[in-house]
Amino acid sequence: MKKTLQEIADFLGGRVVGDAAIEIHGLDNIEGAGAGDLTFAVEPHIEEAKTCQAAAVMLPEGAGEFPKTALYVEEPRAAFAKLLELFTPKLEFPQGVSDKAHIGKDVKLGKDVVIMPFAVVDDHAVIGDRVTLYPHTYIGQYAEVGDDSVIYSNATVREHCRVGKRCVIHSSAVIGSDGFGFTTKDGVHTKVPQVGNVVLEDDVEIGAHDGIDRAAMGSTVIGKGTKIDNLVHIGHNCKIGPNCLIVAQTGISGSTTVGHNVTFGGQVGTVGHIKIGANSVYAARSGIIGNMPEGVFCAGFPVQPHAEWLRMQAAMKHLPEMHKKLKQLEKKLAKYEKE
Amino acid sequence: MKKTLQEIADFLGGRVVGDAAIEIHGLDNIEGAGAGDLTFAVEPHIEEAKTCQAAAVMLPEGAGEFPKTALYVEEPRAAFAKLLELFTPKLEFPQGVSDKAHIGKDVKLGKDVVIMPFAVVDDHAVIGDRVTLYPHTYIGQYAEVGDDSVIYSNATVREHCRVGKRCVIHSSAVIGSDGFGFTTKDGVHTKVPQVGNVVLEDDVEIGAHDGIDRAAMGSTVIGKGTKIDNLVHIGHNCKIGPNCLIVAQTGISGSTTVGHNVTFGGQVGTVGHIKIGANSVYAARSGIIGNMPEGVFCAGFPVQPHAEWLRMQAAMKHLPEMHKKLKQLEKKLAKYEKE
Amino acid sequence: MKKTLQEIADFLGGRVVGDAAIEIHGLDNIEGAGAGDLTFAVEPHIEEAKTCQAAAVMLPEGAGEFPKTALYVEEPRAAFAKLLELFTPKLEFPQGVSDKAHIGKDVKLGKDVVIMPFAVVDDHAVIGDRVTLYPHTYIGQYAEVGDDSVIYSNATVREHCRVGKRCVIHSSAVIGSDGFGFTTKDGVHTKVPQVGNVVLEDDVEIGAHDGIDRAAMGSTVIGKGTKIDNLVHIGHNCKIGPNCLIVAQTGISGSTTVGHNVTFGGQVGTVGHIKIGANSVYAARSGIIGNMPEGVFCAGFPVQPHAEWLRMQAAMKHLPEMHKKLKQLEKKLAKYEKE
Repeated sequence: MKKTLQEIADFLGGRVVGDAAIEIHGLDNIEGAGAGDLTFAVEPHIEEAKTCQAAAVMLPEGAGEFPKTALYVEEPRAAFAKLLELFTPKLEFPQGVSDKAHIGKDVKLGKDVVIMPFAVVDDHAVIGDRVTLYPHTYIGQYAEVGDDSVIYSNATVREHCRVGKRCVIHSSAVIGSDGFGFTTKDGVHTKVPQVGNVVLEDDVEIGAHDGIDRAAMGSTVIGKGTKIDNLVHIGHNCKIGPNCLIVAQTGISGSTTVGHNVTFGGQVGTVGHIKIGANSVYAARSGIIGNMPEGVFCAGFPVQPHAEWLRMQAAMKHLPEMHKKLKQLEKKLAKYEKE
Repeated sequence: MKKTLQEIADFLGGRVVGDAAIEIHGLDNIEGAGAGDLTFAVEPHIEEAKTCQAAAVMLPEGAGEFPKTALYVEEPRAAFAKLLELFTPKLEFPQGVSDKAHIGKDVKLGKDVVIMPFAVVDDHAVIGDRVTLYPHTYIGQYAEVGDDSVIYSNATVREHCRVGKRCVIHSSAVIGSDGFGFTTKDGVHTKVPQVGNVVLEDDVEIGAHDGIDRAAMGSTVIGKGTKIDNLVHIGHNCKIGPNCLIVAQTGISGSTTVGHNVTFGGQVGTVGHIKIGANSVYAARSGIIGNMPEGVFCAGFPVQPHAEWLRMQAAMKHLPEMHKKLKQLEKKLAKYEKE
Repeated sequence: MKKTLQEIADFLGGRVVGDAAIEIHGLDNIEGAGAGDLTFAVEPHIEEAKTCQAAAVMLPEGAGEFPKTALYVEEPRAAFAKLLELFTPKLEFPQGVSDKAHIGKDVKLGKDVVIMPFAVVDDHAVIGDRVTLYPHTYIGQYAEVGDDSVIYSNATVREHCRVGKRCVIHSSAVIGSDGFGFTTKDGVHTKVPQVGNVVLEDDVEIGAHDGIDRAAMGSTVIGKGTKIDNLVHIGHNCKIGPNCLIVAQTGISGSTTVGHNVTFGGQVGTVGHIKIGANSVYAARSGIIGNMPEGVFCAGFPVQPHAEWLRMQAAMKHLPEMHKKLKQLEKKLAKYEKE
């Protein structure tokens, strides 16, 4: 895909100042744009765009002179969105159930579903309207997937689990793997049956390689509108509140309850069986080892208020020097004592 | 699925005190039970159950008065297990090999296997008796799966690997991916062929998204009865002893040997080429950077005895204040020295 | 597979000193070799091999007397490689497209491809010469896979992504999952469309369960020759330079740029939108929270030069004792002041 800048200007109804004949091969933001790319800039980023690598920059009419080839349009943001559609061919999936998919017995399928080759919907499952199942998805027995949800390739929703409406489950995610529960006698571990399920409420997004374990009994719940990044582990019987953000590689241990609107930065960990209050932010790498109140901003392992963590980190840099000074002070004082 | 409490009492041979007409929609533990749920309580949890959200609580005969609707039975635990079966429809899988599965040439299949649609058993593989392979499992060439093992959807067992008897491999786990081995010359990395395999001994459980790398040569071994949680990485040529517990998101680097009955908490990491003694516990987030003796309880990065780690953590909180005090002491002492 | 040591000696043109009739069942390195195994040793490892568990040791001609059964050959390393081939039956895959694979419309397939059962190549994708696609791989619409690349079972390459030549993508890896981008209003998170792609340059290796997120716009790029271990997360719009090594469970947050020849140890984390200079090494567990220059060797969270980190770690062990001493000094000084 390539177009001259003039062709793009004609398509958008814009105006080129500079070399209108240059060929544009791609679109990217100011940082990422390379030699064949078009980018766009609005205030306060126009200054930064002057030295970018892009072949040309799309600017708002009235932005003034510019040291690189520029394409002036009324609304650079909206124009860029139109261009993205032009440069990225739209995906088209045949509606209905591929004759290479496997649909079990007693399955309920909604209207206008897209079920691709080698997807499996096992016996007694319920698939809502306009659901999309990519190749190699597995929907287990008695599982339910709500209207307008999209499940990407190689993802699994195991038996009895329930996925809400408008959910997105990324590739290779696993909903409803067994919780990690064993009893130990004489050093030998015996599995505790995990007979509960997982409930994803509406508008949940599950990242690639997330593992959301099914409850030992009852349900592991991910609240409405919560978005989870890649490679996150949610233990059995957790109850995650609505509208949380859980960044990549975080692990929430079993039976932990999290309030609404909590953000976990990347690589956070928590112990199990605790309550974490609502409206809070935990910085990346936080390690949460006990109940937490609402409305906090914390960091560190064990977690502490973020400001305290910063002070502690600052002091830690002085540690080797403190250790030395302390020895000197001791010596001096010992000298006085002798005198 | 719903039943009145009276129907449940009749089914179990129990006795209702309170509203026998209420409808029960689900079962959960004391913490998790909501408005339509039945839970159960035995000592010492009966007090806690008095204020739970459940519609009704199942109690042992002779437990005395209770402020909520109660269902008295002889053995609440056993009764609850029976109810779980009633409320959770049992899965039924057609025995034999689905005509939508792919079985390669020269494959040996045991008796009474369940091989589901789109499972692949590649050439020369050996599948034991009563093995269950979910959809989209891939069993590589010359691989072996022992009797009574269950492999969930989208899991991979690569060529030449051996899975013992009664193993459970969760969805999207990978057994036998290449070890991470390269030689570097002039900044360019060249792959060292990884021609070994992975051996899972009997009764091993592998979590969702675990990656157990194949040995460069010889075998990566997971010992009998060891249970591994989700998102764990085991490097090439590791030898993990029997009856270990490895909690989620832990990483064991290549060629590390671990004794029997070692527990790694979540998000632990180890360097490679070390020996970790038996009968030990490493707390979550431990970072193990050298050989370790038997029978220890450690924490921290680098690891230290857990009690020392606690003392160090306690002292760290005083660091900013220590830094300040140390400066004051220096000043005072300097003053004396001048006098 | 088993052979007598004499059969092996005949095969290699070597000479046995000791019991030539013993049966060899496997091959392993000195550490890993057990009772039925053959291993090999060259200097400086010959001393270590004298006490190993192997049934026999292959040694270079001229190595002198040896306390165990020995097989003397000209080049032990090369001989061992020949034996590995003998002991490990070679995999053979039928060339061409399995009639159980699904090839979409308008797909371009190169010469001599191997496309196994239940692989899916979706519409408009381009597959190079000699590409191998294992079962349950999904190649999305308009995606491209370069010549001689191998993609293992259950891996996903989503729409519009480009995989270079001679790449290896391990099982269950996901190339091109959506970046984690949301706008938040009144506590509700709305997805920002992720319309970019991922570009893997030539000779890249992607580990099992790696998630490489597609760019919001433009491309997430993994540079030529970079090798990535298991369970690694690369956020959207990252640009990873050539010839990097990224060890297991590391997470690189979105829009971070990494120079060439950078090694990240295991479980490293970085914040997003930073630049990390070339030719550097970050020890395991490093937490990188800002721009970094070229040519450094760092550790810790937040990262600091490795030597400083060691000093800080050493001082930390003295913390509880420092805390106590500081209190004693204060008391003494207070006493003097009173006097």
